Amino acid sequence: MVVMINESALESWRRRTEFPLAAAALIFLGAWAWPIIDPHSAQPWREACRFTTWLVWALFAVDYTVSLVLAQQRWRFVKQYWFDLLIIALPLLRPLRALRLIHVVQLLNRRFSVSLRGNVSMYVSVVTALVVFCAAVAVLDAERGAPGANIDSLGDALWWAATTVTTVGYGDYYPVTVSGRLVAMTLFLAGIALLGVVTGTLASWFTERVRETEETATATQDQVAALTAEVRALRQRLEGEQHRRDEGV
Amino acid sequence: MVVMINESALESWRRRTEFPLAAAALIFLGAWAWPIIDPHSAQPWREACRFTTWLVWALFAVDYTVSLVLAQQRWRFVKQYWFDLLIIALPLLRPLRALRLIHVVQLLNRRFSVSLRGNVSMYVSVVTALVVFCAAVAVLDAERGAPGANIDSLGDALWWAATTVTTVGYGDYYPVTVSGRLVAMTLFLAGIALLGVVTGTLASWFTERVRETEETATATQDQVAALTAEVRALRQRLEGEQHRRDEGV
Amino acid sequence: MVVMINESALESWRRRTEFPLAAAALIFLGAWAWPIIDPHSAQPWREACRFTTWLVWALFAVDYTVSLVLAQQRWRFVKQYWFDLLIIALPLLRPLRALRLIHVVQLLNRRFSVSLRGNVSMYVSVVTALVVFCAAVAVLDAERGAPGANIDSLGDALWWAATTVTTVGYGDYYPVTVSGRLVAMTLFLAGIALLGVVTGTLASWFTERVRETEETATATQDQVAALTAEVRALRQRLEGEQHRRDEGV
Amino acid sequence: MVVMINESALESWRRRTEFPLAAAALIFLGAWAWPIIDPHSAQPWREACRFTTWLVWALFAVDYTVSLVLAQQRWRFVKQYWFDLLIIALPLLRPLRALRLIHVVQLLNRRFSVSLRGNVSMYVSVVTALVVFCAAVAVLDAERGAPGANIDSLGDALWWAATTVTTVGYGDYYPVTVSGRLVAMTLFLAGIALLGVVTGTLASWFTERVRETEETATATQDQVAALTAEVRALRQRLEGEQHRRDEGV
Repeated sequence: MVVMINESALESWRRRTEFPLAAAALIFLGAWAWPIIDPHSAQPWREACRFTTWLVWALFAVDYTVSLVLAQQRWRFVKQYWFDLLIIALPLLRPLRALRLIHVVQLLNRRFSVSLRGNVSMYVSVVTALVVFCAAVAVLDAERGAPGANIDSLGDALWWAATTVTTVGYGDYYPVTVSGRLVAMTLFLAGIALLGVVTGTLASWFTERVRETEETATATQDQVAALTAEVRALRQRLEGEQHRRDEGV
Repeated sequence: MVVMINESALESWRRRTEFPLAAAALIFLGAWAWPIIDPHSAQPWREACRFTTWLVWALFAVDYTVSLVLAQQRWRFVKQYWFDLLIIALPLLRPLRALRLIHVVQLLNRRFSVSLRGNVSMYVSVVTALVVFCAAVAVLDAERGAPGANIDSLGDALWWAATTVTTVGYGDYYPVTVSGRLVAMTLFLAGIALLGVVTGTLASWFTERVRETEETATATQDQVAALTAEVRALRQRLEGEQHRRDEGV
Repeated sequence: MVVMINESALESWRRRTEFPLAAAALIFLGAWAWPIIDPHSAQPWREACRFTTWLVWALFAVDYTVSLVLAQQRWRFVKQYWFDLLIIALPLLRPLRALRLIHVVQLLNRRFSVSLRGNVSMYVSVVTALVVFCAAVAVLDAERGAPGANIDSLGDALWWAATTVTTVGYGDYYPVTVSGRLVAMTLFLAGIALLGVVTGTLASWFTERVRETEETATATQDQVAALTAEVRALRQRLEGEQHRRDEGV
Repeated sequence: MVVMINESALESWRRRTEFPLAAAALIFLGAWAWPIIDPHSAQPWREACRFTTWLVWALFAVDYTVSLVLAQQRWRFVKQYWFDLLIIALPLLRPLRALRLIHVVQLLNRRFSVSLRGNVSMYVSVVTALVVFCAAVAVLDAERGAPGANIDSLGDALWWAATTVTTVGYGDYYPVTVSGRLVAMTLFLAGIALLGVVTGTLASWFTERVRETEETATATQDQVAALTAEVRALRQRLEGEQHRRDEGV
């Protein structure tokens, strides 16, 4: 939509790193989810996964630092991309470890652009599936082994995430740890957003359908302006004609 | 809405098979649901029902094959009707047996056309009732006899489906098997769609009511175009008159 | 909104009975709810309540019969007011006794007219409160004393109705009888309608606010039609003037 | 939006007390919540908190009294601000003590003004967070120590409030006292309003986006009125010209 001729160094950097970072986020997702889903995998493999997640984290930190250096107004950059900074700082806080998934979602999110209806449903489906999967893995990570927890397999976690995002909430499974509940709350918000987007899209579609059948195209400002110019020219001509006649006779 | 004069062979086939296939889908629904609802029915009757479901399945397969043969662009046909192919392939996958109901819903669905509001509410009521009934039967099929299952009669299954599709989700009944949970997830989506359609219809109705009371009909492009032509003709006449007078005198 | 000069006999009857019937419905509501809410009330009082409900029922039956006699097209009347007939027939069916409350709601409903937003929120509040109260009493009637039932006081029933109509559905209370579940299902529908109306009203309000700030009033058809007539008259005058000049010279 | 030149004494008072009262409401919130969240705090501190809440209550009562005295139409003032009066009277009713939080929310509410979309989401986030926090504290106050209650820490209360306001309603925690259930019902309403606002904003946004891409600016009434005046002047000039010619010859 926007044609950038004089792209700034920051814009150029962000455009060129967008695809590699999304790929890195997908790798992060895999390396993060695997040891949680399969808790009995071999120790070296688990170590490799752990190393990969930290490597990707380092990539994100480097990207943020380079972007900050390239930014012309650094303070404004920090304020505008405060979420990126928060996301990079989060994994260092052990109890909020489960929230790291937000980074993955947000980075993959950057790859999609929201255009109108048709695309919105595709976008909503992909993002919802991604959020549900990440939330299920994060809750499993937080809950498994906790005293009194009832979510202890990926199947149960996915089922819990599905009942939650749709706000059905049977209550056969629910998180009991603080980490798990924080994950659940992000899923609640995703659920409300999901309902809102589905309903909003349908409401907009119905409204448009009704309008289409009811009204034909209305007059544009250009048309009426052209008409007015036409009539003004006619009047000036008539006035000129009269002047000449008054003087000529 | 669309007048087809040179109907293709495929369109003609689909138009003529639409009603018989919907009838076959209803027969399938009955033959599929009966042995699940009444597990103590006689063995020959159960065999007859089972035979009928496979017969209808064969009809669907024949319809798909004939359509594919009649299609001028076969690859495009496969891509456009990938859902039909999936539905025909599904019953062969034993664990997804419960999802066969989607075919029935989708075929009956084809019989209805979505026009505007009045019809939308009728359509939504019929489709919701159908989806709730099919989901109840499918969950009953998947859950009955499973260890730890709490849905084991049609009454409980219907009650569960009603609490689920409205996203109330008391949690007094819930599926515990993988099949049952897959059915539940389709019902979640139906519930979100139901909420969206009801809200969207009402929102569109309110918006329209407000617009009606606020604005009278706006000028159409045709009207203003006619007016402009009128004024242009007037101007040309005046110019012609002046010319004649200039020369005549 | 509609000025009826030649009011038919049926319309006159319905207009004049509207207020007394709504009052009778309120009395019915009280006489029906009292023995359910206070199961230990004295026997004569309970008998009086029971007699009152049947008296009001008789009034409704008389109203329907008189309306049917006054109607010019009887078959059309039966089709148009099939719900009234159903409601009068319902109390005779003992197991559906709990659904009698629908009549009260529908009759009080007739007293309100849906105009636009401001009134809609008042109307929705009143109808929702009425539906929640009636559903609570009806569920209490159906559940109290049933084996395995957990709703056995008006407080619990009202709490259950509130969690249900908002689709929260904790599952701490839920109906277990068929009557109670039928009542619950009508409450589910009321809940979806409630969500739809609230959302729809807000969506319409937001849409209107956005439109107001964006667009000024558009040209009306009347205005443009008046303008066109003006220009046509001008042209005819000019043509007449030229004719006279052509002939006069 | 409104420029008040001759501000009345009441308006001036309300404008000048708005900020101090909101600050007082925040202090009230802290003094009210602290002893509930930390039930083992020292007795003198608890007394100080209790004294502070009554002091703020006295401030509110003084504000209402002064406003009433300054109002020119006192009865109209009482009717318009009945909610303020109710809120001041409520703390005197011991069983409804938990509803005092509404005052805080309403006072902080007065500080925000609802403009369009961007602001709406900020406003909704802040108000929802405030309502959820107040409801959690109020439910904790009502439930802790009650027989059969399952909410007995701030963490559980916040988790319960989050599952409730999003209408997920797992049912792992739920209020059992009358006070707690009244608080829950206000939270249900907040949840429905939240869903409605989110959906309504999105629906309005989608509708606007669709409209923007479809229609160009329509003719305004001013434009067409100007055009009509132009043409009328032209006609009168032509009629005048003809008259002069008729008489001059």
